[in-house]
Amino acid sequence: MTINFLIVGAGFAGAVCAERLAEAGQKVLLIDRRPHVGGNAYDEYDAHGVLIHTYGPHVFHTNNKRVFEYLSRFTTWRFYEHRVRAVLNGKLFPIPINRTTLNLLYDLNLGEQAAADFLEKVREPQEHIRTSEDVVLNSVGRDLCEKFFRGYTLKQWGMDLSELSSGVAARIPTRTNDDDRYFTDTYNFMPADGFTRMFERMLDHPNIEVRLNCDYIERREQLHPAHTIYTGPIDAFFDYRFGKLPYRSLLFDHEHRQDLDRLQEVAVYNYPGQETPYTRITEFKHLTGQACCGTSTVKESSASEGEPYYPIPRQENEGLLQQYKDLASELNNTTFVGRLAQYRYYNMDQVVEQSLAIVERIMHGKSNG
Amino acid sequence: MTINFLIVGAGFAGAVCAERLAEAGQKVLLIDRRPHVGGNAYDEYDAHGVLIHTYGPHVFHTNNKRVFEYLSRFTTWRFYEHRVRAVLNGKLFPIPINRTTLNLLYDLNLGEQAAADFLEKVREPQEHIRTSEDVVLNSVGRDLCEKFFRGYTLKQWGMDLSELSSGVAARIPTRTNDDDRYFTDTYNFMPADGFTRMFERMLDHPNIEVRLNCDYIERREQLHPAHTIYTGPIDAFFDYRFGKLPYRSLLFDHEHRQDLDRLQEVAVYNYPGQETPYTRITEFKHLTGQACCGTSTVKESSASEGEPYYPIPRQENEGLLQQYKDLASELNNTTFVGRLAQYRYYNMDQVVEQSLAIVERIMHGKSNG
Repeated sequence: MTINFLIVGAGFAGAVCAERLAEAGQKVLLIDRRPHVGGNAYDEYDAHGVLIHTYGPHVFHTNNKRVFEYLSRFTTWRFYEHRVRAVLNGKLFPIPINRTTLNLLYDLNLGEQAAADFLEKVREPQEHIRTSEDVVLNSVGRDLCEKFFRGYTLKQWGMDLSELSSGVAARIPTRTNDDDRYFTDTYNFMPADGFTRMFERMLDHPNIEVRLNCDYIERREQLHPAHTIYTGPIDAFFDYRFGKLPYRSLLFDHEHRQDLDRLQEVAVYNYPGQETPYTRITEFKHLTGQACCGTSTVKESSASEGEPYYPIPRQENEGLLQQYKDLASELNNTTFVGRLAQYRYYNMDQVVEQSLAIVERIMHGKSNG
Repeated sequence: MTINFLIVGAGFAGAVCAERLAEAGQKVLLIDRRPHVGGNAYDEYDAHGVLIHTYGPHVFHTNNKRVFEYLSRFTTWRFYEHRVRAVLNGKLFPIPINRTTLNLLYDLNLGEQAAADFLEKVREPQEHIRTSEDVVLNSVGRDLCEKFFRGYTLKQWGMDLSELSSGVAARIPTRTNDDDRYFTDTYNFMPADGFTRMFERMLDHPNIEVRLNCDYIERREQLHPAHTIYTGPIDAFFDYRFGKLPYRSLLFDHEHRQDLDRLQEVAVYNYPGQETPYTRITEFKHLTGQACCGTSTVKESSASEGEPYYPIPRQENEGLLQQYKDLASELNNTTFVGRLAQYRYYNMDQVVEQSLAIVERIMHGKSNG
């Protein structure tokens, strides 16, 4: 078939664009470097029959009805509210910090008002909030910052809190009640048959051809699409000509226990201390609700080299990004979408929302001329 | 096993009570007159392989997070927003009445404000609102009342709007925008594998014994439970000694079309006119999302005799109900739960909510004494 659109990357950004364009009658070629669709949201059954998230835990949550409704065309849902504990000296503390966290940590018996008063007393108001350290000190003060945030950040980002933009810590609320949900969105659901199955249904369309194990950078000389939607790292697209944008990478240590059906109380245990090299351990059966024998977990560590996962939210990277964005804006037959191409730490629902909007804009442009 | 609780009726009220009591360690015998669990929410595959609701369409919707979370233990969910059209002179109109309804019906082109002004102009404010007619006239005036409400009510309830309590029509809103959803709750979901499957998972517990084809009224002399939870009609429990409480019944005409994959634009078409004997036609594939060949529908008519479905919301029935309730309150080892036993037009989620609360109260009473 004659291809109208080449889409690079079969993660959320690429898959949503492909499906929307295909439904609008466009012929789409979707390629991905990896041997599977789904991007980092890919999940699969491991050798023990447990459904795992190969590239680390993905928890879907959104307040966006349009996004939820759209994805609902391709999956049914399992109601799931995500919970996280921090492990400190062998004890478990709810994260985000709430009343229980304070009472357990300081051996107190605070009510809700007293918990609010406590936080008000220990917080260290900052005049200017620029870094993540400013955010955390301003919100919970020095002791809680050191215990729960500084060490975790150092392991996660390879940088001190004071070196990171305020946006990173701004994602983390504190509570004075006992609510221990990590997210409190309107829709807290996991795709009932997993993410991969949802992607497969999304891409099951006569106007979409999927090619896997197909590296765009290697192949682009042979491809001459009318329009390209690129969801990979923006610096790679331009052959790193201004230098590399730093992306944080992850290392995954997948493990299985045959002797236990459940290892942890909740899906994720964070390890903020420096005595462990890993940042967190995730037990997948909490996320998936799978009922089976044995349990599979993944230990995550961060690394500065390897597959790109997170853009690094630092002011100094913005200048370099802008140079690449200037180049990108000169290309009127190429669109950059998603976490890696836009170099923004977007959640899954934000990527879906943007992809829907971008295809609408493209198709509107087409119908106008 | 020694039974602690006899539960009569395996619909929502009975099944939730059974599950909660069983989890609390009580031995439960759950009986139902019919050959299946699920009560009127029962669904099954018909001879053509289409999942149908045997006793008429059941659309789950709730604002109650606790109820939704509870049921989520037994099912995954399909996102589904219910839509209804009224068929008038062969044309389709959104129900509840919205801007589109007005524009189509009166050949107008009203914006939102103009639609609000229009309704304000045609409504006939009533000083005292006692009957459903008062509610409808007060809200949309004579013409819309005659076209959409009076005829439908007559077929549905066998009574004129002016004979029914205000509560019946109070369930129906009007809108001045284009929102054509029948319900606008926070959670609009159908059990992904159907209601019956959800009931089966709920009742799959070592402390629950289920006996089907077992009529309580016939068998009660042989049963001597410590405690009974009764979810059938309250008048039948007391052998109709003060006379029969009127319940409205339904007749179902199930049909299948092999030549069509979809018959209707939306799940339900209402027929408010007197030229058809039936009140509505429901096409199940909209509700279930099932992808299969052919389509199955059900035509509903109402009847005064037959299986009891709806309590009839009239003031004069309250006196008779009160007599039965007085008898019921004298029995301290029997609890009356659900639509038929409480003679109230409850939605599914309300029945679940009540059943959860009732079991908590019973178990709390037990632990205190």
